[in-house]
Amino acid sequence: MKKISEKILYKGKWLSLKKNLFINMRKQKVLWESIQRNRNCLAFGIIARLKPSGRYILIKQFRQAINNYVIGLPAGTCDVGSASPKALRKSILKELKEETGYSGKIKSISPVLKLNPALIDHDFLVVRVEVDEKSPENTELCQCLEPAEEIETMLVEGKKLEKLLLEQGKKGVAISSGMWFLACNLI
Amino acid sequence: MKKISEKILYKGKWLSLKKNLFINMRKQKVLWESIQRNRNCLAFGIIARLKPSGRYILIKQFRQAINNYVIGLPAGTCDVGSASPKALRKSILKELKEETGYSGKIKSISPVLKLNPALIDHDFLVVRVEVDEKSPENTELCQCLEPAEEIETMLVEGKKLEKLLLEQGKKGVAISSGMWFLACNLI
Repeated sequence: MKKISEKILYKGKWLSLKKNLFINMRKQKVLWESIQRNRNCLAFGIIARLKPSGRYILIKQFRQAINNYVIGLPAGTCDVGSASPKALRKSILKELKEETGYSGKIKSISPVLKLNPALIDHDFLVVRVEVDEKSPENTELCQCLEPAEEIETMLVEGKKLEKLLLEQGKKGVAISSGMWFLACNLI
Repeated sequence: MKKISEKILYKGKWLSLKKNLFINMRKQKVLWESIQRNRNCLAFGIIARLKPSGRYILIKQFRQAINNYVIGLPAGTCDVGSASPKALRKSILKELKEETGYSGKIKSISPVLKLNPALIDHDFLVVRVEVDEKSPENTELCQCLEPAEEIETMLVEGKKLEKLLLEQGKKGVAISSGMWFLACNLI
């Protein structure tokens, strides 16, 4: 598959709609619409594990695109231009603290992944963070939310994740596909 | 958070860009751009496990939105209007066969999940399928691809998934975030 051309069909404030033209191996034309973020940013999702209980931090967050609350991971974005490895790590821990109140330490960062590559070219990292729940900074938690954010924190053991997702789903809360994949066990 | 209004900014052939206005709990206005598919469809990802080897079927597929190949699950969409449970099951098994050549049996279907709910309101199912690799229909495999599709099938044991993703990433192949979450082990 070879890209021949691309064109912005409409540029919004944050998102643009693009039309891309390709030629496939059989020399047929393939037209594909896709989305582009106007700001070149890297997104990250945080798998934060409390120590010593072993519970994970989930969030129930209002998502404007679906007009509902959804169970997902604490997550954020970071400008690519300013993203030195140090600035990125700082931004990840800041986001976790703002969304959930918890302070933690980064244990690992995944390679760069693609979030929803059928639709958009958006880089995404999965970051593992360890949170010491006995630490003084984690005993009185205080969120710091932006106007677009309404977020509630939930704690769950890994083996009870699927049960929690099913219960929340029955209450009408949406479940992100990423959370479901996390709960899937590949034996 | 309460939705006040929504407006289509631009309607493409398959995708539309929307502007949504909300009022938050503190009575502040929140503007949010989102994407809508013009066709009301349900997407599905297939976790197909071969029996008796226990390996899983992955695909390496060209994705126009990122202009690269990506490791992901066999996946497809089904029109919501025509999706009786029976038609949906048929469409899932047909998609698996077209993309990978394998015939299988559905073992379970997840509740309705949301794919990328920061950006789009798109329903998604995770379907578990069992494939009898000794069955005559699975010994000579034949894909049946559409013009926009270039797909290669890969088989992997669950416990070797992370290693395969890292190897493919080093070769320049993209990794979808869903695949990475599947490889994450929540202890």
